[in-house]
Amino acid sequence: MGDDNSIFIGAKPFMNYVTGVVMQFTTKGADTVTVKARGKFISRAVDVAEVSAKRFLEGSVLTKNIAINSEEFTNKEGKQVRVSTIEISLVRKDAA
Amino acid sequence: MGDDNSIFIGAKPFMNYVTGVVMQFTTKGADTVTVKARGKFISRAVDVAEVSAKRFLEGSVLTKNIAINSEEFTNKEGKQVRVSTIEISLVRKDAA
Repeated sequence: MGDDNSIFIGAKPFMNYVTGVVMQFTTKGADTVTVKARGKFISRAVDVAEVSAKRFLEGSVLTKNIAINSEEFTNKEGKQVRVSTIEISLVRKDAA
Repeated sequence: MGDDNSIFIGAKPFMNYVTGVVMQFTTKGADTVTVKARGKFISRAVDVAEVSAKRFLEGSVLTKNIAINSEEFTNKEGKQVRVSTIEISLVRKDAA
């Protein structure tokens, strides 16, 4: 049994994240990998999850759960701002 | 009982979509509203769903289901391309 692992999506090259997800499953033996993002990187997180599960790990990994939420924080100007978040859990089929 | 309605997210002003979602629930009496988007508009769809459910319809609407998928199509240059999609179902609490 592997640990549950998270990949946080940001501005690095797209394939870095896909490789990160794939390696968690293949070389680290993870059962679940959670792809997380905030704000404008949410679209990218969905792309990473889809490409990882459907192109690179097709047949062995599926999307188990998707959660969206909001985080509130105070920005540099002292203003209260809201940002959306997403967490996409990919799970190894034989562990589902 | 209202119909099940979809709001497709694009490049219009953000509040247009939020108003659309809120009005489906309030003036059209919908039980479920599905917020849909493709590609880069996915982040925006999550924002629309979060702001609608948590700011404008707080306490009366919740996120019931989120599905992600991929669509393949042939672009203008004749190349096969993949785009991610999202569908976020918001449901009236008393219909959940």
